[in-house]
Amino acid sequence: MGKRKSREQVHGIFYPRSVAVVGTNRGRGTVPFDIFYNILKDGFQGTVYPVSPREKSVAGVKAYKYVIDIDDDLDMAVLVFPSTVAHLAMEQIGKKGIKSAIIISAGFREIGEAGMKREQEVKAIADEYGVSFIGPNCLGVINTDPECSFNASFARQMPAQGNIAFLSQSGALCTAVLDYALAKNIGFSKFVSFGNKADISEIDLLYYLKDDPKTRVILLYLEEVTEGKALMDVVQEILSERGKPVLILKSGRTTEGATAAASHTGSLAGSDEVCNAAFRQAGIIRCETIEDMFNYAISMAYQPIPEGKRVAIVTNAGGPGVLATDRAVHEGLTLARFSEKTADILKKSLPHTANLKNPVDLIGDAKKDRYSAAVSSILGDDGVDGALVILTPQSMTDIRSIAEELCSIGRRFPKPLYTSFMGEADVSEGVEILQRHHIPHYSLPEDMCQAFSQACLFAELRDRDPGQPTLYDDVDMDRADQIFATVREEGGKKLSMDQSFRLLDAYRIPLLPYGLAGSEAEAAALAGEIGFPIVLKVVSEDVIHKSDAGGVLLGLDSAEKVRRGYQGILESVRSSVAGARVEAVLVQKMAGDGEEVIIGIKQDPSFGSVVLVGIGGIYVEIFRDFVVRVAPFSRGEARAMVQSLKLFPLLSGVRGREPRDIESLLTCIERVGQLARQRPEIAELDINPLLVRSQGRGAVVADARVVLENLERKER
Amino acid sequence: MGKRKSREQVHGIFYPRSVAVVGTNRGRGTVPFDIFYNILKDGFQGTVYPVSPREKSVAGVKAYKYVIDIDDDLDMAVLVFPSTVAHLAMEQIGKKGIKSAIIISAGFREIGEAGMKREQEVKAIADEYGVSFIGPNCLGVINTDPECSFNASFARQMPAQGNIAFLSQSGALCTAVLDYALAKNIGFSKFVSFGNKADISEIDLLYYLKDDPKTRVILLYLEEVTEGKALMDVVQEILSERGKPVLILKSGRTTEGATAAASHTGSLAGSDEVCNAAFRQAGIIRCETIEDMFNYAISMAYQPIPEGKRVAIVTNAGGPGVLATDRAVHEGLTLARFSEKTADILKKSLPHTANLKNPVDLIGDAKKDRYSAAVSSILGDDGVDGALVILTPQSMTDIRSIAEELCSIGRRFPKPLYTSFMGEADVSEGVEILQRHHIPHYSLPEDMCQAFSQACLFAELRDRDPGQPTLYDDVDMDRADQIFATVREEGGKKLSMDQSFRLLDAYRIPLLPYGLAGSEAEAAALAGEIGFPIVLKVVSEDVIHKSDAGGVLLGLDSAEKVRRGYQGILESVRSSVAGARVEAVLVQKMAGDGEEVIIGIKQDPSFGSVVLVGIGGIYVEIFRDFVVRVAPFSRGEARAMVQSLKLFPLLSGVRGREPRDIESLLTCIERVGQLARQRPEIAELDINPLLVRSQGRGAVVADARVVLENLERKER
Repeated sequence: MGKRKSREQVHGIFYPRSVAVVGTNRGRGTVPFDIFYNILKDGFQGTVYPVSPREKSVAGVKAYKYVIDIDDDLDMAVLVFPSTVAHLAMEQIGKKGIKSAIIISAGFREIGEAGMKREQEVKAIADEYGVSFIGPNCLGVINTDPECSFNASFARQMPAQGNIAFLSQSGALCTAVLDYALAKNIGFSKFVSFGNKADISEIDLLYYLKDDPKTRVILLYLEEVTEGKALMDVVQEILSERGKPVLILKSGRTTEGATAAASHTGSLAGSDEVCNAAFRQAGIIRCETIEDMFNYAISMAYQPIPEGKRVAIVTNAGGPGVLATDRAVHEGLTLARFSEKTADILKKSLPHTANLKNPVDLIGDAKKDRYSAAVSSILGDDGVDGALVILTPQSMTDIRSIAEELCSIGRRFPKPLYTSFMGEADVSEGVEILQRHHIPHYSLPEDMCQAFSQACLFAELRDRDPGQPTLYDDVDMDRADQIFATVREEGGKKLSMDQSFRLLDAYRIPLLPYGLAGSEAEAAALAGEIGFPIVLKVVSEDVIHKSDAGGVLLGLDSAEKVRRGYQGILESVRSSVAGARVEAVLVQKMAGDGEEVIIGIKQDPSFGSVVLVGIGGIYVEIFRDFVVRVAPFSRGEARAMVQSLKLFPLLSGVRGREPRDIESLLTCIERVGQLARQRPEIAELDINPLLVRSQGRGAVVADARVVLENLERKER
Repeated sequence: MGKRKSREQVHGIFYPRSVAVVGTNRGRGTVPFDIFYNILKDGFQGTVYPVSPREKSVAGVKAYKYVIDIDDDLDMAVLVFPSTVAHLAMEQIGKKGIKSAIIISAGFREIGEAGMKREQEVKAIADEYGVSFIGPNCLGVINTDPECSFNASFARQMPAQGNIAFLSQSGALCTAVLDYALAKNIGFSKFVSFGNKADISEIDLLYYLKDDPKTRVILLYLEEVTEGKALMDVVQEILSERGKPVLILKSGRTTEGATAAASHTGSLAGSDEVCNAAFRQAGIIRCETIEDMFNYAISMAYQPIPEGKRVAIVTNAGGPGVLATDRAVHEGLTLARFSEKTADILKKSLPHTANLKNPVDLIGDAKKDRYSAAVSSILGDDGVDGALVILTPQSMTDIRSIAEELCSIGRRFPKPLYTSFMGEADVSEGVEILQRHHIPHYSLPEDMCQAFSQACLFAELRDRDPGQPTLYDDVDMDRADQIFATVREEGGKKLSMDQSFRLLDAYRIPLLPYGLAGSEAEAAALAGEIGFPIVLKVVSEDVIHKSDAGGVLLGLDSAEKVRRGYQGILESVRSSVAGARVEAVLVQKMAGDGEEVIIGIKQDPSFGSVVLVGIGGIYVEIFRDFVVRVAPFSRGEARAMVQSLKLFPLLSGVRGREPRDIESLLTCIERVGQLARQRPEIAELDINPLLVRSQGRGAVVADARVVLENLERKER
């Protein structure tokens, strides 16, 4: 990745005044021709010049042999020459003083090493001349702003103007998206296929769109997250400064998918759980499919963001009303209770067989008047945050009039109004009216409910206060440095149990009192100092599962038992793990009662150090009850992590159980977060278990292990 | 519910020869007219007569004042008179000797008590005359079989002929479904809106469709399951005898309020969980939305059911290929590995930039020839169970030719071929070709993958052997009878701890040795007989959470400790639960090591006795790790239950842990299943925990509670 692009550099891509299409020709239906012709035919407000070594004119426009032959101050070049000569073209573009380019041509990084070399060469020339470019290997760029009206793409059609921006790593997906959008009457502000992003990246584009007055919602299709932290930063800025939703469809979720992505664009997917967590942390709405993405986008782009989750469902058919209610409740929405005034209006306007409660059933023969009375009284009700309107095409339903009436009501109320006209052919005219007037329409009531709930989720993400990470200044940095230095001197990666404990101690994470004994007598003496009851654990590189090997003894309450236990452990371990070398026996204070929690650190290739919190012991593997966050994070986030665990009721106290010391747990999580941030050389850390005792009695580490990155990666 | 209808009775609804529409009129656009006119205009092969008190003719056809005036042997009446006079019309229908009717009219059970009375009256008259009928309160019945071509509905259009049957409890939903199907070129064999099902029920219709040669897939929309067991039985018959898929969309997931249940089993297994389990047990595919239902239906109706899960994905765009791969793997499908022969053909037929591995990327400029070579070689590969073909509309894509080629390939290979042409407008011509030739098409690649996985699921459900429930004949029935008799004599519902234990003992479910002590001395004596270590537990109706009240003492290893413990328990309980009456103290053998499991019984209003198995202790509430089955079930099903628990790895032995005695656990589950089946008066039973010891050492009940149904419900 190069430096961040300036606003002006990205702006140049969208708003050129004179453009050369370099490498075009007369072959209608081929990419080099289509690109030139699309710019020409789709109302470009500037001047476009064809550059073609062999043609006198292209589409009736005088062609030039070389870019430098053009007698005009060009500010943009669209490069469609084959990749093998792209570097020559870029040289000329640079010499001509052009500062913006779009490289459509494929045959670069995505085809392997030879292509990667070409890409680097082109990029180096561009850098030399200060050319910023999109691509290579992309469908192009579209700006629907009538001030410029620029379609530098080989898409079949120019999309309509709209307030949704779409950015895609995949060019092929763009054609399907444009076709889909056309059928649904969805318009775009900016549409960018950014391909291999050798220069301008999705991050640069996001910074630009943040301040683009034409854009209200930003959609992004990604196959790999290469700059995770930068992505989180820019989205957080977009949310806090502009309140624009950012929706991402990220493929490569599964291992097989990731492999396919790797063979396709040379990308490596990080763990999908981390990606989910990081997206949520940044305020990104992650979408499952292209359809979901547009379902959410139209609601956020067309309608006010809901101020709450209390929806009213209005329907002319009971069955779909029940299906919608099911989904609404499942999605965490609540069915609004109507005010007396609303109830009165409904009673007066609807037949006595109608259901006046939420979901409101207008009955099958409902026409415009009933829809009008119900929806407008409901949207005027202070207890309602939004209306979800369902229509089924009965023989007497005046679909067109109802659609028009809903558009008019939608304009009158500053609250979200979504619709679902079920069926296809019969309702198509009504649906088109709704779409043209920016009333979100969904074929399925269930999708309508899901879109509303995602808009509510967006409101939450936008309005939350992420808070600042605490910086604990009582950490003994020298001691921590010393431990790392020792491990490196020894050439190892894995910290010993004692080193791991001492590292945590340097970060003031509480430990059970312990010592290491090399003999029966030492063990007994240590036990005396620490106080009974005592736990003994074998310390040995060769014993992975200590309990299974008989290497753990609990609850020893006398010096004599400790002495016998020491011998017992040595015997058990030696008989169950042949040739095991025992380094020492850990003499530790018995933990007593406490809920077991795991806190861990791992390195993610996309997002860096992440912290995991979950149920401790063996159950974390079985129940996958854990949550992750990218470090650093605030205490508020640590609290949200703990509260989202299934384990949480056991921590907060259920069925008259004593509540646990959650504040101490939070402090431990924060300190591990600080450790993760200050020591990126930690590849893996497991505190398992941390024992969270009853309120006021703190939390203590019973066991921990730490592994560093490979030494060659330590400097970064 | 009446008796089951005979095949002939249901057949009469679909294949009438002369039909009277009773209560029609000349009001075009009203239901009474539309019904008559639809029969007339949609090619009915028999004779239709309008019966109207006031009209001379309807739609140009001579009308009759009364049904009895018609000089023909009528075999069907469609009743559209208002509900208030329906009983009079039914009387005449009966007298005329008509044996089949469809009651379209609303205003019955669905509007409350007055309507319910009317419905019962009509039903009684119909029974008297031997008239079988559909409805009331429905959209009607459609039979597309050209032999009859009968559209007795007020739908806007008659659907095309096809091999999918659709049954719906909601009439309004039908109009949306018909419109949707029209747009997707989906045909139906039979289409029934069965409304209030006062006579012919969905069960009768399912038995009929089982043997209907025109029907290959059966769809059912239900708002309530009234005859759960009958539904399970008929679907099991349909699967085992005919191998036809039954797909159900069941709404009302969330509307049934969770009534506070005292037992774990009662509170965990909500009606929707039970419905899910029962459907799966019966072999029903449960759908989430109408769209899902049709997505699955077209694949099963049009294409062979897959013989395995190895799919090949073929695409002209990388991005959608990755998205499809993600979803396929998520849905449990595997990406097929191609044979050398296939690999050779792909290598020869595709450009060098193509991805020859699965997912096969034909590259954006792919035309018919590449699709043809790839898809036919893949479908000819023995390692591939089905092909999933994606197309995005690039400027050079010959969409129409590719669609036609896929149709032709589909005919040549006896393996499933599904498609996803992405976008809308550009691909619409191709999509229509696919639909007309019964190549399943999905707008989203993700939906295509999901449909394939559901077809695989169907194959599993169809082919599995549900097995026979074991009947253990060593149960002491007399002793069990006696316990129930005693509880009833006492007028109670709840079994005491001792009664609960004795009931389980009668069913030969192993218990920890125990006794009840009323004094210190008794406790000590019992402990001596049972053997140390000993557990003491308070027995008191007033103490719900024994541990929390200090009512449990573990691991007492001497008579003296038992004596002191007895006193300690009395003191703790009395101080923590004011006024608690202590009946006795349970003296029980200490359990020792074992994995804790819960086994429970509850009564479900739709499906009767169900059995729950889950992780024991408090964790079952936290992690909701449980599974339910409708009783009875085979040992194979019991094994499937245990294997599907997240807990299973802990039972089968992970990380070198000792495997648990799963066979003994299965026997306990089977015996509880037998208890549930033989004693439907058990409202709730919790065995929690059952301790599953290491292999060969059995499983034992540590605690149990049993509650009976209300006495007035006991006889059934």
